[in-house]
Amino acid sequence: MDGVFAIAMTILVLELRAPETLGPGGLGQVLFDLRSRFATFVISFIVLGVYWFAHHQVFHFVLRVNRTLVWLNILFLMGIALVPFAASVMGAHSEDPIALSLYGAVLGLLAALGYLIWWYMTGDRGLIEPGLDPALVHKVRLWLAIGPVITPVAIAVSFISTTLALLIYLALPVVFIFFNPVSRYLERLRETEP
Amino acid sequence: MDGVFAIAMTILVLELRAPETLGPGGLGQVLFDLRSRFATFVISFIVLGVYWFAHHQVFHFVLRVNRTLVWLNILFLMGIALVPFAASVMGAHSEDPIALSLYGAVLGLLAALGYLIWWYMTGDRGLIEPGLDPALVHKVRLWLAIGPVITPVAIAVSFISTTLALLIYLALPVVFIFFNPVSRYLERLRETEP
Amino acid sequence: MDGVFAIAMTILVLELRAPETLGPGGLGQVLFDLRSRFATFVISFIVLGVYWFAHHQVFHFVLRVNRTLVWLNILFLMGIALVPFAASVMGAHSEDPIALSLYGAVLGLLAALGYLIWWYMTGDRGLIEPGLDPALVHKVRLWLAIGPVITPVAIAVSFISTTLALLIYLALPVVFIFFNPVSRYLERLRETEP
Amino acid sequence: MDGVFAIAMTILVLELRAPETLGPGGLGQVLFDLRSRFATFVISFIVLGVYWFAHHQVFHFVLRVNRTLVWLNILFLMGIALVPFAASVMGAHSEDPIALSLYGAVLGLLAALGYLIWWYMTGDRGLIEPGLDPALVHKVRLWLAIGPVITPVAIAVSFISTTLALLIYLALPVVFIFFNPVSRYLERLRETEP
Repeated sequence: MDGVFAIAMTILVLELRAPETLGPGGLGQVLFDLRSRFATFVISFIVLGVYWFAHHQVFHFVLRVNRTLVWLNILFLMGIALVPFAASVMGAHSEDPIALSLYGAVLGLLAALGYLIWWYMTGDRGLIEPGLDPALVHKVRLWLAIGPVITPVAIAVSFISTTLALLIYLALPVVFIFFNPVSRYLERLRETEP
Repeated sequence: MDGVFAIAMTILVLELRAPETLGPGGLGQVLFDLRSRFATFVISFIVLGVYWFAHHQVFHFVLRVNRTLVWLNILFLMGIALVPFAASVMGAHSEDPIALSLYGAVLGLLAALGYLIWWYMTGDRGLIEPGLDPALVHKVRLWLAIGPVITPVAIAVSFISTTLALLIYLALPVVFIFFNPVSRYLERLRETEP
Repeated sequence: MDGVFAIAMTILVLELRAPETLGPGGLGQVLFDLRSRFATFVISFIVLGVYWFAHHQVFHFVLRVNRTLVWLNILFLMGIALVPFAASVMGAHSEDPIALSLYGAVLGLLAALGYLIWWYMTGDRGLIEPGLDPALVHKVRLWLAIGPVITPVAIAVSFISTTLALLIYLALPVVFIFFNPVSRYLERLRETEP
Repeated sequence: MDGVFAIAMTILVLELRAPETLGPGGLGQVLFDLRSRFATFVISFIVLGVYWFAHHQVFHFVLRVNRTLVWLNILFLMGIALVPFAASVMGAHSEDPIALSLYGAVLGLLAALGYLIWWYMTGDRGLIEPGLDPALVHKVRLWLAIGPVITPVAIAVSFISTTLALLIYLALPVVFIFFNPVSRYLERLRETEP
């Protein structure tokens, strides 16, 4: 299913297009006018990259899957497939609070499903490795709660300032990357190895 | 070949697009007008997810393939690749019985090929594990007969009520998921393990 | 690199589209008017499926690759990526000999590269398993020569009758499948196993 | 992540399209008018093929990844996903220095990230096999410096002659292939094996 991530990331670029006939400003003007689409491309690529990496890391702990986990995963991938749509709307209407809210809603859906998947997976269902550190399980839960808490804030902010909301969407993956408890856990594990 | 599933699932989103110039209702109206395309996206994503998971489960029992099985599989993938086309037509013309019939025809084709593949695979051709429970083989055959039986009904219904036909297309994957005999078989196997 | 096959096969469907506004004949007429695009979709999907399977079978015998083989393979994949383009032109202009010639040229390029890859691979370069039956090597060479011989004929025929040329393009993968010496070799190997 | 390469390579073909209604010159004229898009397709496919192969070779030496390497890799893949955009602009405006500069900028970004990844990877961070020949590490560094040095030259040249800049973009992957020190290293290793 990694395919859905890779395809969603690559088709984001289909939003960046120059028309065949140029206006008086020439190609330079056309490319300059693509700047908000380009910003959306970069943010969305990084967001999808973050989720793709987190997805990979989280499923690393999985011993076996059951039907519920498969379906939570398919819903999560549906959210991933919606990112190019929300990005397309936000790239074309970057000053419209409704466009930024739609983007925030898709990010919020992904964040909520990510939280739900981790919560379900680490419950007492025999789906993960028995020896997994409960402190890590708890830390990851807090980490995955960042998204569902921040995205409603960003949606509200978008009605005051679309620029500020955009900055929150950009900050979100950065925070996500730097506070990744799984990476830190794995790095610590490696250091304590003889 | 999992790629065809992932690509078909992701390109479904290309049907969801907002125009660059908005009407008097603004972006809110534009997004509201996408509702039948969105419903089609969700149904089609779930249908493809169901077939992808079933395909994965069924090919799990395969010991070796022969030319006929490869070609049945390629025809099945051709049906998978047709889902975005049928979804595109149904999303744009959700009140038109012909659009719903086309969607039903693609689902029916997939269901019939799925049935055929299972029938061929479990025949006495040495393609599957010898110890596979004959009761399971029979149950899966009944389960896979749901699609070829229901889709002609849905096509007929679409000429009376397109909404009812749409509900049948939505119900079909749900029924498929809940009555999945392979999942139940594998779960029972796991429980009886020491 | 299987990805290029799967993506090329799936994006073929992007040629099948119904307009949002229908003419007096309704959706039925629109779908009927797609028939030559649909025929092109089916032929191209099967052609790509054939090459994908043959590619898989042929690379099964490979022990190691060198730079030349990698680059022949990338050129072959470039030919695969051109099939949706040639299919798009042929689907829109199915009565135009130039469209059919373009399609034939892409098929011919693929066939020629396929022949070249097999010839290079089975030369005395240590790239394949040493024990491979020389009779099979020779039979596969003859089999792979079908394409480079038939496609120029089909191109010439397209200037007399586009329908006949289309039938040749349809017949080609069928002949390819039925006379596949690799499948027959592997099936015979299996039968002689104790 | 090979998926991003395969998808970017295949969606390049979406730029090659014939209109449904033909002008007085017929389909022949239409195809002839696609020649600069076709040249861009071929160059871009080969460039992506080169990077895909180099990426594969370089990651072959990796023992383990850390967060920085993952993110350098995601940025590199973002550059790969931008190639179809730059190709689309250059294919439509092949005489415009700005279009050629954009293409050069994307190639330069990829080249710089490739250099950076190799530099980071081979630093004293325990990410690669300990026994890797330091002479090879150095040679690969020089090889990967070709791109970041040549692309600014090509951008400057594009303001004098777009044809010459295009030839540099075509020469770049050819040079890259022929002077590949990793291939030569692996080929020499194989010869010295008993």
